[in-house]
Amino acid sequence: MKFGIVGYKGRMGNEVKLLFEEKGHEFVWGYDKDGEYFSQTPELIIDFSLPEVLEKTIEFVKNFKVPLIIGTTGLSEEQLQSLKLLSQEIPIVQSYNFSIGIQLFLKVVDLLKEYIDGWDIEIVEAHHRFKKDKPSGTAKMIKECLEKEVPISSLRLGNVPGDHILYLANLGEVLTISHRALSRRAFADGVYKSANFILNKENGFYIFEDVMFEN
Amino acid sequence: MKFGIVGYKGRMGNEVKLLFEEKGHEFVWGYDKDGEYFSQTPELIIDFSLPEVLEKTIEFVKNFKVPLIIGTTGLSEEQLQSLKLLSQEIPIVQSYNFSIGIQLFLKVVDLLKEYIDGWDIEIVEAHHRFKKDKPSGTAKMIKECLEKEVPISSLRLGNVPGDHILYLANLGEVLTISHRALSRRAFADGVYKSANFILNKENGFYIFEDVMFEN
Amino acid sequence: MKFGIVGYKGRMGNEVKLLFEEKGHEFVWGYDKDGEYFSQTPELIIDFSLPEVLEKTIEFVKNFKVPLIIGTTGLSEEQLQSLKLLSQEIPIVQSYNFSIGIQLFLKVVDLLKEYIDGWDIEIVEAHHRFKKDKPSGTAKMIKECLEKEVPISSLRLGNVPGDHILYLANLGEVLTISHRALSRRAFADGVYKSANFILNKENGFYIFEDVMFEN
Amino acid sequence: MKFGIVGYKGRMGNEVKLLFEEKGHEFVWGYDKDGEYFSQTPELIIDFSLPEVLEKTIEFVKNFKVPLIIGTTGLSEEQLQSLKLLSQEIPIVQSYNFSIGIQLFLKVVDLLKEYIDGWDIEIVEAHHRFKKDKPSGTAKMIKECLEKEVPISSLRLGNVPGDHILYLANLGEVLTISHRALSRRAFADGVYKSANFILNKENGFYIFEDVMFEN
Repeated sequence: MKFGIVGYKGRMGNEVKLLFEEKGHEFVWGYDKDGEYFSQTPELIIDFSLPEVLEKTIEFVKNFKVPLIIGTTGLSEEQLQSLKLLSQEIPIVQSYNFSIGIQLFLKVVDLLKEYIDGWDIEIVEAHHRFKKDKPSGTAKMIKECLEKEVPISSLRLGNVPGDHILYLANLGEVLTISHRALSRRAFADGVYKSANFILNKENGFYIFEDVMFEN
Repeated sequence: MKFGIVGYKGRMGNEVKLLFEEKGHEFVWGYDKDGEYFSQTPELIIDFSLPEVLEKTIEFVKNFKVPLIIGTTGLSEEQLQSLKLLSQEIPIVQSYNFSIGIQLFLKVVDLLKEYIDGWDIEIVEAHHRFKKDKPSGTAKMIKECLEKEVPISSLRLGNVPGDHILYLANLGEVLTISHRALSRRAFADGVYKSANFILNKENGFYIFEDVMFEN
Repeated sequence: MKFGIVGYKGRMGNEVKLLFEEKGHEFVWGYDKDGEYFSQTPELIIDFSLPEVLEKTIEFVKNFKVPLIIGTTGLSEEQLQSLKLLSQEIPIVQSYNFSIGIQLFLKVVDLLKEYIDGWDIEIVEAHHRFKKDKPSGTAKMIKECLEKEVPISSLRLGNVPGDHILYLANLGEVLTISHRALSRRAFADGVYKSANFILNKENGFYIFEDVMFEN
Repeated sequence: MKFGIVGYKGRMGNEVKLLFEEKGHEFVWGYDKDGEYFSQTPELIIDFSLPEVLEKTIEFVKNFKVPLIIGTTGLSEEQLQSLKLLSQEIPIVQSYNFSIGIQLFLKVVDLLKEYIDGWDIEIVEAHHRFKKDKPSGTAKMIKECLEKEVPISSLRLGNVPGDHILYLANLGEVLTISHRALSRRAFADGVYKSANFILNKENGFYIFEDVMFEN
């Protein structure tokens, strides 16, 4: 496919570009703070930039009339609304976390939660020392998915990209689900999956869970 | 409930007895190599003994007309057939592994297997140094469930009751499912779950997976 | 060797008895709340009982004139003093924790602590849900050994006998030391090691660290 | 300090450059396949390049009369000899693995090995799917350090930079040492440590173990 990226010089944009190229696809259009790069019309646009760029992204997408995958974080409620409006004209995948493994983790939690009445549950997350929030957003997602009060222990360790562990124990055994992110590559893979999902979809607003689990 | 146990003096039979009593139930009947113990008619019978005792167990169960939970290992094909025949008269739960956690593990594998095309998969199992077979039967069950050629690494370590780890990795992340048995208690819990399942069931032959996941 | 046990019917006393017998040694004398068992004079006495029994133990040991290994917990300062006095007449090993692995763990921490300036350190301990104190005494020992303020996360999980994990991380790597107790057997092994240590020792008061690391 | 790098555009050279600059030091000289960069005379030279460049490096170091830290892999026996000869004129640190954590790991193994007679030992290593050799060189170093026949299980998982786990188990407990590399940063830290070590050293040939553990 021929793809375009808003924020193609950023860390995540660049990671996505490299992965798509590795898979044999062609980077034909890009936009970054120092301007536009154009060689051909893209078949879809991926946006990993900043909330203030969204208006520009919407403009581009409308011109090209192509699907959008957007992973920009920190969008306002109005911005999400304008994306939903836009999704009447083109198919959109929006998510704050494109990790396939975390989606699978949550799916597993969703499966297990009805069988663990009376079990002890503990969540542990480990992240690099520079992370300021405690606990991590993903740990909170796991807890919400369990629909229970669950203690979360947060470890801050060197440069660890992100570990999440869920312990489930009855009196005879311990079942553990854990996820370890190795790099931004984990998220680029999820974007690639989304690209294959969105290309022939009808207009509409999709989330990454749809990409993973819908048919 | 009032329960009876064939093999109530054995290690597993005793563990079951203790757990049921802890939950407030009453041991009213037992059979072991030195004879029969009778105080009242049981509402169900649990058998953790030896294949050569099966005939006796069938006789008891027919007399009492109560459900049977049987975890005796090493039954012959004929013995399993005679249990199936018996299940036309009473409800039976039969399994070689009553661990709830392992059932959940397999359920998780079954869920995940359709999302991990192209991922690397590794199974590691650790057991006490006295275990003679390699890899463990449970590791083989996990592999079969994956329906793929998966390497299994077997560690033999001191007195470890039984660990199983499944690693799933794409290029950006590692998802891990692991199970650690602490003691025979893990299996007694599964027997207790089976007891609650079987008490009001229609005649039929059930396996532990039915107990866990059927309605 | 011919050994005696104070508290031989208790959980720990019985574990010690079984292990020593397995190693080919002979249980020749015992004392428990229902009285004394005597077949021969022991070559050493092991005490895993209660503080209120200590006076009786001292009396026995003086009569037999044999070494003492004592693992009774909760001794008062006076009781420890009377043991030290007694150690002028016979050799004594006293400890609240006879786990060989934990001693090795602490030895490792002692080695590592001078190389980890600027590293992030986290301790995690997991124990059964019935444990009331948080964090565990062993986790506190690890922290003290590090001579630093280190966060300790305590997980309460089913029936886990006792896990301790020490994470050490700089910006490029994570080094982890962990210990997992499987059963009381871990402690019985340490008592056995102490028995071999004490048999030909001069009078004196020894701790388990001496058994492990002195020549 | 003012430092120079042979191979400063390579992945490892660049990582070293970034780390030293982050610590406030100045990159004043460099050499790479497209030529020399010179702004000032360096106080020491670091070489992470290729064996065929060694002759050039020796020439530079002799001219500048400054210490050398060399991490180039695949040096021939003759090349190591010529470095030893050179070390009569300048101090040199040479190593194929500048990971501080792995050095500590080996130190720990060296400490533990005399206390684990009769224990079960297992080594597990996990690396990315592109790694061709099995087992890893580091796993072999751990095994050699133990001076015993120890089974090594090798897992090949996605993009894992490198995990090493050593399990030690007696019948009551499991002691585990594990190391997880997060990135090349782990090695750059070791180079930095070597730089501080070498600056005021006498002429001589040092290895990374000297840097870590000598006074």
